[in-house]
Amino acid sequence: MLVFFRPHPLRSAACALAALALMAGPSASLAQDEAAVRTAEQLRDRALEGSIAYDLVSELTTRFGPRLAGSASEQAAAAWGADTFRSLGFVGVAVESFPLALWTRGETRVEIVGDFQQPLAAVSLGGSIATPADGIEGDAAIFETYEALLAQPEGALAGKIAVVLQDTVQAQDGRGYGATSPIRGQGPTEAGRRGAVGFVLRSLGTHDHRFAHTGATRVGEGTIPAFAISPPDADQIRRIIRTTEAPIRLRLFSTAGFTRDSLSQNVVGEVRGRERPDEVIVIGGHLDSWDLGTGAIDDGAGVAITAAALKLIEDLPQNPRRTIRVVWWGSEEVSQPPPAAGLAGARFYASSRADMVAGHVAASESDFGAGPVYSLALPAGAAATPFRQAAMRVLTPLGILFDPVPATGGGPDTGPLTAMGVPAFRLNQDGTDYFDYHHTADDVLDRIDPEELDQNVAAWAAFLWLLAESDIDFRALRPAARVP
Amino acid sequence: MLVFFRPHPLRSAACALAALALMAGPSASLAQDEAAVRTAEQLRDRALEGSIAYDLVSELTTRFGPRLAGSASEQAAAAWGADTFRSLGFVGVAVESFPLALWTRGETRVEIVGDFQQPLAAVSLGGSIATPADGIEGDAAIFETYEALLAQPEGALAGKIAVVLQDTVQAQDGRGYGATSPIRGQGPTEAGRRGAVGFVLRSLGTHDHRFAHTGATRVGEGTIPAFAISPPDADQIRRIIRTTEAPIRLRLFSTAGFTRDSLSQNVVGEVRGRERPDEVIVIGGHLDSWDLGTGAIDDGAGVAITAAALKLIEDLPQNPRRTIRVVWWGSEEVSQPPPAAGLAGARFYASSRADMVAGHVAASESDFGAGPVYSLALPAGAAATPFRQAAMRVLTPLGILFDPVPATGGGPDTGPLTAMGVPAFRLNQDGTDYFDYHHTADDVLDRIDPEELDQNVAAWAAFLWLLAESDIDFRALRPAARVP
Repeated sequence: MLVFFRPHPLRSAACALAALALMAGPSASLAQDEAAVRTAEQLRDRALEGSIAYDLVSELTTRFGPRLAGSASEQAAAAWGADTFRSLGFVGVAVESFPLALWTRGETRVEIVGDFQQPLAAVSLGGSIATPADGIEGDAAIFETYEALLAQPEGALAGKIAVVLQDTVQAQDGRGYGATSPIRGQGPTEAGRRGAVGFVLRSLGTHDHRFAHTGATRVGEGTIPAFAISPPDADQIRRIIRTTEAPIRLRLFSTAGFTRDSLSQNVVGEVRGRERPDEVIVIGGHLDSWDLGTGAIDDGAGVAITAAALKLIEDLPQNPRRTIRVVWWGSEEVSQPPPAAGLAGARFYASSRADMVAGHVAASESDFGAGPVYSLALPAGAAATPFRQAAMRVLTPLGILFDPVPATGGGPDTGPLTAMGVPAFRLNQDGTDYFDYHHTADDVLDRIDPEELDQNVAAWAAFLWLLAESDIDFRALRPAARVP
Repeated sequence: MLVFFRPHPLRSAACALAALALMAGPSASLAQDEAAVRTAEQLRDRALEGSIAYDLVSELTTRFGPRLAGSASEQAAAAWGADTFRSLGFVGVAVESFPLALWTRGETRVEIVGDFQQPLAAVSLGGSIATPADGIEGDAAIFETYEALLAQPEGALAGKIAVVLQDTVQAQDGRGYGATSPIRGQGPTEAGRRGAVGFVLRSLGTHDHRFAHTGATRVGEGTIPAFAISPPDADQIRRIIRTTEAPIRLRLFSTAGFTRDSLSQNVVGEVRGRERPDEVIVIGGHLDSWDLGTGAIDDGAGVAITAAALKLIEDLPQNPRRTIRVVWWGSEEVSQPPPAAGLAGARFYASSRADMVAGHVAASESDFGAGPVYSLALPAGAAATPFRQAAMRVLTPLGILFDPVPATGGGPDTGPLTAMGVPAFRLNQDGTDYFDYHHTADDVLDRIDPEELDQNVAAWAAFLWLLAESDIDFRALRPAARVP
């Protein structure tokens, strides 16, 4: 048993160090700990010399282009994924299919009519319904903030097209997107509830280029056709309303909708644990993408990083003690409601393994682009463990710091697992420019820096080895679990 | 008469300085010279404090959006332009209309079919004809260079879709675009002549974002439907052909074409010369734009820079000796052939003034975006004149150098005038990033830096004052004119 991986209740690193000295087992165990660190360092350094990640994301995006949830392209990519897993030496490879209604974008047009007549750069939101065949025309009810829309009473927007111009703030950890994504998710429903006949939002992007961003909107009772315009078009509307008292008149047209029953799927493969094969660490990314780009940063990068990391581990002379499973989830972006937009593959993975979830010792997804990892977040209670010390010994040279805020989730597709009690960790990536490209036509291979991608692989491979060699039980560390 | 404006045949600056000392006229003339320089410096400095240029380009692009040649939007912008000229105090204001066939883009789709099935980000080239209603499908004949296509014998491309992937090199003066623009202009005709049924080129852009660039193609006998794909899509094709021996199959669809007779127009206005009103300096930009963006850098910027510069001169207590005329040319980008794609307004301006062209002492257009001016180019023979010295005294503090290569043209819309013997000068702008945005949907107001725009206004206003106060005769300086 590896000493530094044994969980204990001390919280401060200083105490942990003292405890380590006091509690140290026989020298053979300490040597084993050091061996694990050394192997993790080797994995890290091998990744930095060049992993297969860039080749994987290049082949995925070049061969299949966009991979819309439930599309033939996503299905073909999944078949390729399973072949790839087998060729990498992973075991237990399977394509796990589930039914899914296919949403398609069709045609989209958004324009100002009357005064200031001009077309706007726009896309339909994912999951949006179509307009009537002759479109929707109406005066714009324009809000600088979502809160201002929510402050409107019922009926206040009758016959209007609601327009929300709120900016998405740029932030390294993507919290700007966290703040505005409810506008996209709930905005159409909230506007429809107040009588609006159409919904337009400023794209949830942090750039000033003429790309409109798609992304899922919640579709339910009373939903209305929903669109995003590019940031420069939102600013164009701001300029127009400063020059005129008259309402801006908009015309919307879309043929979007859920068109037919189809199939989506998860691809799974693993490196089986040599001692505790039923203790599973689940990692991965999502194989589907939006239809506008080729899904290189969202989420070809995560798919490639996690598989490349596992391949480095598979190449070692012996497997780790625990199982590491990579899942390329299907249909993360959009799926027919209810119960929710997106995450269909994640829900299927978790629900079809309800009896095995107790054996999932940790879960994490790489789904925040291809920027470098800058921090490690562990579950609550793990900060003061020797495991954390070992991890930071290996990760610090990659420019990675320890995040003082515990991980409460491991990424979108681990959400259903987290809800079932599976602990999460995160290798947080620098996403400063992620929302410049995310969900746009510009999400293509050109956005990926191979060296930054390999820094991710280095972090994942090294961390996974340490975690899979250890017997740390994150569940046992939970504060709640220690209260009688 | 201003001494330093008197042309003389000495070529080197050192000689010119010596000559100036020897040939200096009466002190009253020297004082006048100094007064002209001081006024030019004042104009320069006022512009740097903030001109009306940004307001003009903002209003133009916000109010009218895209201004396709011959469209209702271009017509409305021209009417606004004439009102604007009058409100600025310009005289002789007129909208000069001419007939033009309206080209419209309609719908466009370019996709890979079969293996590697995926849509590509593409636009129709300006002036392109439509495909048949059910599109065109064919194997791609792919060329890394235009020369490789031209090396093909007649019939070699029968039934194929010709694809040229040649890159456009980034260069401060735009010469990369000069090298590749023949591919767009002549490529479809050359490919059609060799049997191709469709033509696709890598966008003439210097970026790696998913914007396809439009731009005029020459339409004549045997022309074929012509498209541009974005740079990342061209690189996608490069990756595909490295992985497969099989031909790539493409499917093209377009409803583009010249659809109906319309009108376009030039807008003219001037500040009349107080002593030599018939000696005209013609400046301006083009009011039309492509339909994808709002034509902010191409050429709202030039339209705004030249009018704002003239407005600063109009504000002075007295007019310059010569007339300065600003022309906002119509239909620079596209017009029905023959004889040529584009420049319809420029040709109309020149041909309708054939008897007055001898009075045009110089012509120049601002049509290279909104980047700062970095050099002044004068007609051949002007390098060694005191006029050049005066100009550089005023322009050097703006970061502008004297271009050792004489100006042979003053910009696209002055081409017909140059052909009729009118001398040209150029205030060359830094266009390093111009072809990142030019002719794309991303050519919007956000691309313009107001301070850089005002640096342009400063250069134009100062230079124009010096030229309009002088009696330099560029025609007389021509080397050919000095050979008996």
